[in-house]
Amino acid sequence: MSPSPIYLGVVGVGGVGTAFLSQLARFPNPPKLVLLARSSQTVLAPTPAYSNIPAVDWATAAATPSVTKTGALPAEEIATYLASAPGRAILVDNTSDINLAKSYPTFLKKGISVVTPNKKGFSDDLSLWKDIFSSAAEGNAHVYHESTVGAGLPVLSTLKDLVATGDEVTRIEGVFSGTLSFLFNTFAPASGPSNAQWSAVVAQAKELGYTEPDPRDDLNGMDVARKLTILARLAGLEVSRPDSFPIESLIPEALASLPSSADGITEFMTRLPEFDSQMANIKDSAEKEGKVVRYVGSIDVSNKAVKVGLQYFDKDSAIAGLKGSDNIISFYTKRYGSNPLIVQGAGAGGDVTAMGVAADLIKVMDRLQ
Amino acid sequence: MSPSPIYLGVVGVGGVGTAFLSQLARFPNPPKLVLLARSSQTVLAPTPAYSNIPAVDWATAAATPSVTKTGALPAEEIATYLASAPGRAILVDNTSDINLAKSYPTFLKKGISVVTPNKKGFSDDLSLWKDIFSSAAEGNAHVYHESTVGAGLPVLSTLKDLVATGDEVTRIEGVFSGTLSFLFNTFAPASGPSNAQWSAVVAQAKELGYTEPDPRDDLNGMDVARKLTILARLAGLEVSRPDSFPIESLIPEALASLPSSADGITEFMTRLPEFDSQMANIKDSAEKEGKVVRYVGSIDVSNKAVKVGLQYFDKDSAIAGLKGSDNIISFYTKRYGSNPLIVQGAGAGGDVTAMGVAADLIKVMDRLQ
Repeated sequence: MSPSPIYLGVVGVGGVGTAFLSQLARFPNPPKLVLLARSSQTVLAPTPAYSNIPAVDWATAAATPSVTKTGALPAEEIATYLASAPGRAILVDNTSDINLAKSYPTFLKKGISVVTPNKKGFSDDLSLWKDIFSSAAEGNAHVYHESTVGAGLPVLSTLKDLVATGDEVTRIEGVFSGTLSFLFNTFAPASGPSNAQWSAVVAQAKELGYTEPDPRDDLNGMDVARKLTILARLAGLEVSRPDSFPIESLIPEALASLPSSADGITEFMTRLPEFDSQMANIKDSAEKEGKVVRYVGSIDVSNKAVKVGLQYFDKDSAIAGLKGSDNIISFYTKRYGSNPLIVQGAGAGGDVTAMGVAADLIKVMDRLQ
Repeated sequence: MSPSPIYLGVVGVGGVGTAFLSQLARFPNPPKLVLLARSSQTVLAPTPAYSNIPAVDWATAAATPSVTKTGALPAEEIATYLASAPGRAILVDNTSDINLAKSYPTFLKKGISVVTPNKKGFSDDLSLWKDIFSSAAEGNAHVYHESTVGAGLPVLSTLKDLVATGDEVTRIEGVFSGTLSFLFNTFAPASGPSNAQWSAVVAQAKELGYTEPDPRDDLNGMDVARKLTILARLAGLEVSRPDSFPIESLIPEALASLPSSADGITEFMTRLPEFDSQMANIKDSAEKEGKVVRYVGSIDVSNKAVKVGLQYFDKDSAIAGLKGSDNIISFYTKRYGSNPLIVQGAGAGGDVTAMGVAADLIKVMDRLQ
């Protein structure tokens, strides 16, 4: 039997959004793309036909004569438009917009499933988390967000399977930021002592585009804290906020109050070398124990303790041996015993993040058909 | 809305089957167990009510007065019974029986989904593989078999996601046998030279229950070859048979013709020490290159080359550093670049294998509801 068509709205056409559209264009059985939006503009399939937008990228979509163009639409209007489609609908949110995330319950209650790499909504107040999942149940809709942690790596799906089949997850530990992975793998490689200065490594990473435009957005640890919040909640802990547990910031105290303007970024990068000796001391002290320092997140499920910060690791450990900007996530569980279940690989980048989104989309389509 | 009930038949109550039943008993929304079979006996919910068999294990099921007991049923009869249930049905095959596997197409054509850790059917003739998946499409049924490779580790689901989203998998490599992992991690640890004799390590593994009752069933490499066959087929290679590519057997040539009887096993174990010097030579030659020997499987997708056998690895590589009887599987893909996506952890054992089965069952139920 031929499955009924599924209607798709996509918001966000940045790095992940663009990579996602190019993967979507090669689906053997694609959903009908009926809405594509970026911050300033929206293209819509005209109603009531809801014909497919022939889009492999934003430019093609925006240049298609038959589609309707409007400015930015409020989330409520996007939800109403998708809910009116003559079949099940899915929203793919490829933004990192907290406001769009706050409207997921509106979509879900209307029966529109949500697929997204946007971690903001899932790591905000616990009340929003609960609202998202109760709205999904109410609307008989699905929420998949694999790429909110570790990009396309099978992290959330693995944790969900462990929990759903009754395993007892005791501890989750790992390197959750591609940026911080690169910084520490370069600053303190496990292969032997390095003379790299911390500020020079940060500058290099910024140059390579591995950091956010403002490197403090990586160094403050909040990105890692948001990912830990999501994992901890899936493991059953009621984490109230992403800043409700200890987070060690790598922004020197003295530079914490610099403004977030372009000038502020420049001043931060200029003054960062003043603190190289602090980071060198940490590296040396790890080295004296035959270890290396890494920036990790850990969740002690039994003791309900979540924390993010620097820790020393044996040089022959898997965490110390990470390469490039790879992530590593270790699940310690009752069934897996003393050796954890480990997932490792690139945890950032447009293509692999979009892959997690595309794979989630396929799973939701499978469930709706 | 309340989902319609799903009817479940389970065949096999050995180590995996027993662990599976105990996980099933804790499902918050379990399917209706209406058939439970072991090789000599079958218990059935009486028709037409198809009430639930209150079973957390075989003994409880068999002792329930209200259920129907028969001897072993042919697969065809089990399929007819499940197809008559007043809703969608799923067969969970917890055996390693090739004959039951050969009847999957019969189940699938009748619309009965199949969930199983039984690798026999998926690694047999390519014609059976094709028959299974075309029958599933014909019957609008699903086939999930995560635990056929790496037990509960997310191996097949990850490979399927990579392929479905259009990534190009170039190479898959790893340690796919918990038994052979233990043998080589003990015989040639990466942490430093060991005086362990090969035959003593095999005897120890046999004693610990890590090998099959006949250790030759591990040492002949066929278990690994069957797993590689499944992975290669999912990656798009048309592997005709599990013995259609090079497989290095660890059974010494001179002992290859010993009978498979209990006496044959005893003679094999008694004579194995005669060949310790051969294995010691291999270990030493790896050691001279600063490496360790491991038994691995690899699939070179681009060159359509599958092989199973001994290979040397740097001591600081992830494969060399494996612990206990862990598996490790590395996926090299276009999107993931030079650093592979790695999955690692226990790849054998009743609980973790059953976990893969239980997680698959939940996914199939989600798709049927």
